[in-house]
Amino acid sequence: MAKTTAQTSALLEQYCDQLHPMLEWLAHYGADPQGGVSRLLYTPEWVQAQKALAQYMTKHGLDAFYDQAGNLTGRLIGTAPELPTIATGSHIDTVIMGGKYDGAYGVVAGVLALAYLKEAYGPPKRTLEALSLAEEEGSRFPLTYWGSGNITGKYDVSELPHVQDRDGITLAEAIEQAGFGANSPYTSGRRSLGAYIELHIEQGCVLERSQQQIGVVTGIVGQRRIEVRVTGESNHAGTTPMGWRSDSLACAAEMITAVRRSALAAGDPLVATVGNIQPYPGVSNVIAGETMFTLDIRHLDHILLDQYTEQLRSELAAIADREGMTLFWQENLRAEPVLMNPDMIQELQQICEENSMPSRQMPSGAGHDAQIFGMMCPSAMIFVPSRDGISHNPLEYTAPEELVQGFRVLTQWLYQTAY
Amino acid sequence: MAKTTAQTSALLEQYCDQLHPMLEWLAHYGADPQGGVSRLLYTPEWVQAQKALAQYMTKHGLDAFYDQAGNLTGRLIGTAPELPTIATGSHIDTVIMGGKYDGAYGVVAGVLALAYLKEAYGPPKRTLEALSLAEEEGSRFPLTYWGSGNITGKYDVSELPHVQDRDGITLAEAIEQAGFGANSPYTSGRRSLGAYIELHIEQGCVLERSQQQIGVVTGIVGQRRIEVRVTGESNHAGTTPMGWRSDSLACAAEMITAVRRSALAAGDPLVATVGNIQPYPGVSNVIAGETMFTLDIRHLDHILLDQYTEQLRSELAAIADREGMTLFWQENLRAEPVLMNPDMIQELQQICEENSMPSRQMPSGAGHDAQIFGMMCPSAMIFVPSRDGISHNPLEYTAPEELVQGFRVLTQWLYQTAY
Repeated sequence: MAKTTAQTSALLEQYCDQLHPMLEWLAHYGADPQGGVSRLLYTPEWVQAQKALAQYMTKHGLDAFYDQAGNLTGRLIGTAPELPTIATGSHIDTVIMGGKYDGAYGVVAGVLALAYLKEAYGPPKRTLEALSLAEEEGSRFPLTYWGSGNITGKYDVSELPHVQDRDGITLAEAIEQAGFGANSPYTSGRRSLGAYIELHIEQGCVLERSQQQIGVVTGIVGQRRIEVRVTGESNHAGTTPMGWRSDSLACAAEMITAVRRSALAAGDPLVATVGNIQPYPGVSNVIAGETMFTLDIRHLDHILLDQYTEQLRSELAAIADREGMTLFWQENLRAEPVLMNPDMIQELQQICEENSMPSRQMPSGAGHDAQIFGMMCPSAMIFVPSRDGISHNPLEYTAPEELVQGFRVLTQWLYQTAY
Repeated sequence: MAKTTAQTSALLEQYCDQLHPMLEWLAHYGADPQGGVSRLLYTPEWVQAQKALAQYMTKHGLDAFYDQAGNLTGRLIGTAPELPTIATGSHIDTVIMGGKYDGAYGVVAGVLALAYLKEAYGPPKRTLEALSLAEEEGSRFPLTYWGSGNITGKYDVSELPHVQDRDGITLAEAIEQAGFGANSPYTSGRRSLGAYIELHIEQGCVLERSQQQIGVVTGIVGQRRIEVRVTGESNHAGTTPMGWRSDSLACAAEMITAVRRSALAAGDPLVATVGNIQPYPGVSNVIAGETMFTLDIRHLDHILLDQYTEQLRSELAAIADREGMTLFWQENLRAEPVLMNPDMIQELQQICEENSMPSRQMPSGAGHDAQIFGMMCPSAMIFVPSRDGISHNPLEYTAPEELVQGFRVLTQWLYQTAY
């Protein structure tokens, strides 16, 4: 017997109330004494968290199953199984000394959303899946998006990357120890999806500072990571007059200033960051003969990203020339932007407007599983505010009422798309 | 029977010819496979070098003796022992992977000068001493000028500083193992001198670039070493728009540029160097919340040194203010300038002119034993060129003919002052 609107509304409130306590509950698996969470891929804490989530899924009538990579799915089978599946979720792993929200929020919200929809409306037309993905952060192994990659075909457990963790344990050993892998009783994760939607904390301060509750993500920015080396001449800091120096660190300082100035001039959403710098020999009384610094450049538009990067390279080369130094420029990472699906963006924006939730469209400056799924199927992301923009840290926090707003948008979109 | 001028000239040439071979011979004690020397205080190589020098002194008729600190003196007793002693020399220790000339040149030249003077002219009026000082570099223990300091009374072996080397060996253990210390058969090094003169390589490129053979040192610069910390806010490099950043490394880069600009404006002999910088967390994809950098500032005039340092502090504080950051400023070392004796400078300058040696008066930007003796008695230093200004490195080099010119000036000054 179908429930009345008053009944489904009351039920939704009950599920909303469960969101924050369930995040706290999940944070016990791998809880750090500092108040955060360290839950690395295939560790006992990670296995326990997946098991606990599987039990919860089963209890709420979802069909829970693993794949060989250890991805956990809670499936709500639709009445029209010929229509492509809609998935939501995020990743279960954290960085070392991470927070309680990154990844976990999208996982918990997905499970609760499907549990609510089943209880409120019964089976959907289109099959729905709540995903608790194995890995996204790259914190244990030098490997990212291992979970989503095993679903889209970017990775496959039958061809395990030869990587080791800090203790020398290989991915092959770790996956087997956790009960997964090619020899486990599970099937390959690889399958096609009709759509993917991910709820996530912003991990930045844009929503908070602009006092908005929801960010509808337009795309995940592309990224260039570059190592820059400036070579001058190392000399004694006491015996070399200022006019005769070839000081690589002073030259690098001019370059870092140029990076900031040019990035500000380029305007949002371009960001360019020098996060690390290393002078050699790096001693207070020696003029640094060589200085290395890192460049991290991101933009949602790959043409503008390339244009900016090339212009910056020319500008730094001109500074090096002027100072008679040698410039070395090495691109270490090149990730292209992944745009979110325009129709889904439009639908999410409309849900926010109908519910009078202050929202904005914005790019994601950080990487997410949605960029992996986005290359396979229409994908979207919903952001909620991060207090002070802090993430990957025990201080990571989003207020319960803000968590609930994101959950409402997710649930509404799943309902109107799948039922 | 007194020698003729022709005879003493010929004899001087013989001693000049010994200078370079004797430096090469001394460099065998602690020779590095890379072509340099590592001869740290109280190590077996150091002990062997002092013993070999003592034998050489004795063979050439000098009265060789140690003090409790391990300083070696070769004394040529004067006929008027009531007149204060004149000493010359330098230090026997090197930095790790150092060169063959720093310190060793002044030691070898001093021994050869006294041997020559004795052979050419017999006993002087004023007593002469050739010093092979135990330690100047601070390379084994966190301790500098241990040799000269034990003569002037800055240090005393009866009150050994509680310091350890990298292997955890204390100074007390090391000194005893080398056969020195308060329980050794030697007397305290402490005594008063009438004058001290030190021959040394420049360790800079001023003489070479100005094509001069001799530097008559006006003084040893004063120095301030400061640790600067800039505190902003650490944030995600992808999710924080440029306009909302509080990037401590970008702010530090502005400051480093200000250091160079202001030091160039202040003019020689002021030098200001940022040799080390450390951002936290120092990761390519995180905006650095805090950045530390070192400041090394030197000038021959302590008033101008203080003025510049205070102005720089104000300028950096203004930059921090403008960017909304916190500035932490901690002075870790404060060494005042030590001026060389004006009469000795005048006499040395005159010797150069009489011998048509291109010379200049110049400050020493590096520290030397002469600054310790300079606080006790009239002191002077003679510099010879350093190829490419390189020092503290196996590539350290001064051509034999340049070494000889410095030796001639030293010998001439000792002769005219002591005889």
